[in-house]
Amino acid sequence: MVLELRPPEANDLEALRPLLPVFISYALSFVNLGIYWNNHHHLLQAAKVVDGRVLWANLLLLFWLSLFPFGTAWMGQTAFAPIPTAVYGVVLALAGVAYFILARALIAVDGQPPALATAIGSDRKGIISVLIYVTAVPIALFLPLVAFGLYIAVAVIWFVPDRRIERALQR
Amino acid sequence: MVLELRPPEANDLEALRPLLPVFISYALSFVNLGIYWNNHHHLLQAAKVVDGRVLWANLLLLFWLSLFPFGTAWMGQTAFAPIPTAVYGVVLALAGVAYFILARALIAVDGQPPALATAIGSDRKGIISVLIYVTAVPIALFLPLVAFGLYIAVAVIWFVPDRRIERALQR
Amino acid sequence: MVLELRPPEANDLEALRPLLPVFISYALSFVNLGIYWNNHHHLLQAAKVVDGRVLWANLLLLFWLSLFPFGTAWMGQTAFAPIPTAVYGVVLALAGVAYFILARALIAVDGQPPALATAIGSDRKGIISVLIYVTAVPIALFLPLVAFGLYIAVAVIWFVPDRRIERALQR
Amino acid sequence: MVLELRPPEANDLEALRPLLPVFISYALSFVNLGIYWNNHHHLLQAAKVVDGRVLWANLLLLFWLSLFPFGTAWMGQTAFAPIPTAVYGVVLALAGVAYFILARALIAVDGQPPALATAIGSDRKGIISVLIYVTAVPIALFLPLVAFGLYIAVAVIWFVPDRRIERALQR
Repeated sequence: MVLELRPPEANDLEALRPLLPVFISYALSFVNLGIYWNNHHHLLQAAKVVDGRVLWANLLLLFWLSLFPFGTAWMGQTAFAPIPTAVYGVVLALAGVAYFILARALIAVDGQPPALATAIGSDRKGIISVLIYVTAVPIALFLPLVAFGLYIAVAVIWFVPDRRIERALQR
Repeated sequence: MVLELRPPEANDLEALRPLLPVFISYALSFVNLGIYWNNHHHLLQAAKVVDGRVLWANLLLLFWLSLFPFGTAWMGQTAFAPIPTAVYGVVLALAGVAYFILARALIAVDGQPPALATAIGSDRKGIISVLIYVTAVPIALFLPLVAFGLYIAVAVIWFVPDRRIERALQR
Repeated sequence: MVLELRPPEANDLEALRPLLPVFISYALSFVNLGIYWNNHHHLLQAAKVVDGRVLWANLLLLFWLSLFPFGTAWMGQTAFAPIPTAVYGVVLALAGVAYFILARALIAVDGQPPALATAIGSDRKGIISVLIYVTAVPIALFLPLVAFGLYIAVAVIWFVPDRRIERALQR
Repeated sequence: MVLELRPPEANDLEALRPLLPVFISYALSFVNLGIYWNNHHHLLQAAKVVDGRVLWANLLLLFWLSLFPFGTAWMGQTAFAPIPTAVYGVVLALAGVAYFILARALIAVDGQPPALATAIGSDRKGIISVLIYVTAVPIALFLPLVAFGLYIAVAVIWFVPDRRIERALQR
């Protein structure tokens, strides 16, 4: 796991208080990475063939995911300051876009079983998530906690792994 | 491995003395993570099917395990101060509860071979461990070394991998 | 992922400015590691047998790749200063040489399918990359940004995974 | 890879000089970990059955290996000071002993193919390595560079992967 939670210098309960926003950021990023890990795994397992464009798209997704620890730590240690909370949202949005591109790239590969396209469908959940993130980023500049609430809302939407794929492929 | 042991600045034997509690914490967490890794591996191999609830439970377990480095480092660098030692116990207890939930979730999946439920049984060892941790946490606030002794006791109980599962499935 | 991007202390947009060269270095190294990971995976999958020399060559490649985070961080935090940018180029060149040696070592193993040698061929792309790196290192001492542009040029050349191997083995 | 090489603050060639011992320590540990990784992989692949004692022995080996980054960093940043160089040797010796125990534990498992015992044989190379380490540790307290030379000598002995196992099992 790439996320990190550094122990405080002091050894009393007071020392834990500034850790609270750090811990909350950590928990949200942990859940988000868990969701991506799961859905990514399902997506690649459902695909039978890949090509160069898929590898590009996959690397792009991994790039944005690799920035989660940065965004998480900055938002947490500044206790949800406006700019860091907005930057975190930008990273979330770009990861969401990259996942969408990856799914499209996989469907577009010659010889892909049509079940995959059926399973992913219009990917409404993915599009809605990105729209929420894009809405949340400017909000973060004025009301960062509201934006953070929107980030949590997206995680709740996604937490259940992508049943569409499982269902369509089990037939 | 996610645990970390930082080298001291000085280069004499004295420099190693404050590292002793850090090293002891590190060793206990290493053993605990090894035990979880082993039993988790056995548990998932024995299961034939998983569902959404299992994935939730698994993510929850991984979340608490991911906090072991934090708890270990804080307890070690404060040389078993009361609050950090109690916090470490809370993390251990919550990981224990999450493992218990994961086992239940796995048994409850439709189509799971009954051998798994037989193998896990009443999971007495898991319940006792959590009870010891829950007892140790308040003790840690007054006698942290006694609490730490209880944490070691649980590790000793668990060190042998879960033979029940192996045995029941080999039949 | 071994690369690391540390969050700034401050929480305003100004704090992001010194991060720009760090971020650009990070992105280039991410792409380079992704390319190596991909081609390395293809290369080893195409090989049917390995021997002691292959293991040596593989360890050598991993050694230079393991220095990417060091080179990346130094070049980034000094905002493309001459010496760090040259050192980064040296690491890139040595990784390129090690990859070349690994490919040769794999071809030379007794019992290797001839398709592998055909697929790798003269490895013109690998040789050109190393030549560009070797040219870029002295340039870095005077015009580090030009050298960095050359590093990017090599990444662009390599980004597409090694189709030669795929093509030759699919026949 | 768990080893770490931190970039210096300055950006000139001078800044690299204190990194030289750090880099040399890093390189030796990298090679040692590569050797263990290789031989460990061969050993476990050659074994058909494992038991609880094997898991204990394996965890013990991983424990000492997990201390390599600590020993490496301390020895490197103190430029081969006596105590850190001796401590590094102790870690190397204990990892060697743990590997020996693991091999014995694997042979002793009921139902293990006799080829494994034949392949490992008297494990002369392993015993000699530990003896060299045990000799080097007291030497390190007075002549640390001589001790370091002995550590390198052991790495050279081991670099070739354990052909005995491969050979005996290929028959």
